[in-house]
Amino acid sequence: MINCTLIVGSMAFDDLELPSGSFRDVVGGAATYASLAASLYAKAKIVAVVGNDFPEMWMDRLSARAIDISGIERAQGKTFRWHGEYAADLSSRTTLATELNVFADFNPKLPPSYRESSHVLLGNIHPELQLRVLEQIIEPKFVAADTMNYWIQGERTQLAKVISRIHTLLINDEEARLLGEDHNIARAARRIRSMGPKALVVKRGDAGALLFDNEGTFFCPALPLDSELDPTGAGDTFAGALLGQLTMTGAIEPRQLRVALRGAAAAASYCVEGVGPDRLFTVTREEVDRRRDRIAELSHC
Amino acid sequence: MINCTLIVGSMAFDDLELPSGSFRDVVGGAATYASLAASLYAKAKIVAVVGNDFPEMWMDRLSARAIDISGIERAQGKTFRWHGEYAADLSSRTTLATELNVFADFNPKLPPSYRESSHVLLGNIHPELQLRVLEQIIEPKFVAADTMNYWIQGERTQLAKVISRIHTLLINDEEARLLGEDHNIARAARRIRSMGPKALVVKRGDAGALLFDNEGTFFCPALPLDSELDPTGAGDTFAGALLGQLTMTGAIEPRQLRVALRGAAAAASYCVEGVGPDRLFTVTREEVDRRRDRIAELSHC
Repeated sequence: MINCTLIVGSMAFDDLELPSGSFRDVVGGAATYASLAASLYAKAKIVAVVGNDFPEMWMDRLSARAIDISGIERAQGKTFRWHGEYAADLSSRTTLATELNVFADFNPKLPPSYRESSHVLLGNIHPELQLRVLEQIIEPKFVAADTMNYWIQGERTQLAKVISRIHTLLINDEEARLLGEDHNIARAARRIRSMGPKALVVKRGDAGALLFDNEGTFFCPALPLDSELDPTGAGDTFAGALLGQLTMTGAIEPRQLRVALRGAAAAASYCVEGVGPDRLFTVTREEVDRRRDRIAELSHC
Repeated sequence: MINCTLIVGSMAFDDLELPSGSFRDVVGGAATYASLAASLYAKAKIVAVVGNDFPEMWMDRLSARAIDISGIERAQGKTFRWHGEYAADLSSRTTLATELNVFADFNPKLPPSYRESSHVLLGNIHPELQLRVLEQIIEPKFVAADTMNYWIQGERTQLAKVISRIHTLLINDEEARLLGEDHNIARAARRIRSMGPKALVVKRGDAGALLFDNEGTFFCPALPLDSELDPTGAGDTFAGALLGQLTMTGAIEPRQLRVALRGAAAAASYCVEGVGPDRLFTVTREEVDRRRDRIAELSHC
């Protein structure tokens, strides 16, 4: 088994309408954010697809972070593109356009060197593809998955298969309500956990994150920031940092998971301080650790 | 000085459209909820106005909780009435109708026995009236105030006077953004604290509460509940329980304030489990204390 975080998910160009301005062709996607965050702690390996318009310079930037890019397929066509607009207070966003492009035909194929990965993050892609990735990995130690409303509503059977085979499901509160078929988060969480996963993490943005597992319920607050710029990728950064930390410590005890959630919230707090994934290139693990400790102190008295 | 919690605010009939049904003539109002919550810990004294339609039985119910009702004026006319409808997930509500009735001419007059109250909660009324109440009290030890968008937008000068004379301002996040003229909560909090109050508590419903004071920032999570029925009055219950605890302990050290915030969140969690203030009549201080401890454990690892 190779101690690393395998991440499958989107790589994209994002066009962002932010209160601070309009930004075009910002390299993003769940796999980009998550791998950068994971690489603060452990070796990360990406499985994704980009088009022939994706800048080679970006491959170099990821490689320079010791991220394994050999699982990124370069397909004929354009890279996935998302155009979104944020509210003035950054609390909500509207999708203006989505162009799937080469992502529409994504069929994740793992290089042989990926097959013994210890930790796996199944990003938000078709549940069928999440299963296909899982089948290519030999006895992973820890698997987490993300998903979205579209799959919850349209591919519930396939999604249930994925969920039954993973350790931790990482979704936001709206998705948890939809998947658990209950507007009450505590009841929805029980329902979701009965579908298989040992742990459920419900991400609530600047309202923190809730963990439901056999130990009970844990709440991790978000750090109140006075310098938010762009929430894009914060949830993926959270997921990547969580997996990276678990890969580094090698443990998935309830306490480790709780400490790692604080580190994940700390990493996400840096992500939103830059436009796109910029800040993730400059932040150090020591800085994230300091904010992780501040998050622990935030609800301590 | 008399060790008690003086509470000024509305008393009302609420017509509630809840997912669990339609409820008419539910006795509510900020002063009702806050005094019931405060009375779990300390002597509470109400300053409010009701009409001649307000049931005497309710006066008896409050008196039976050792709440001083001698400051409740009974005026000719109808009691203040609010009609509201909640979303299916209880996360938002719409006001269908407001009838101020006797509340429109409310001019709070304190009985002589109220003038030496140690702790004061200035509920959400016209800032001019909040000042008038404050002027009638001889050297209170601790004063907290609530307010709302309507006064923040329309009576900013008067409100600034109130805020400059109190220890703690208790508002929700939307109000904090409006008052601090910044969509960022951390920056808005700095701005508000520069207006005078030593502490600012930002209530965020089921996303918990933030305290900003000289010690730094403290986050108090809300308890994830699986039995919410009616969020009406939860914020007032929170405020009343906070003041009641501070009256009981007599201290306003940063640590006491933090512990009391958890107790306040615990009391509010009981409030939402009943329709109207019902649950506040049956819950015991011991039950609230147990949930306060659970809230402390929620973010501990």
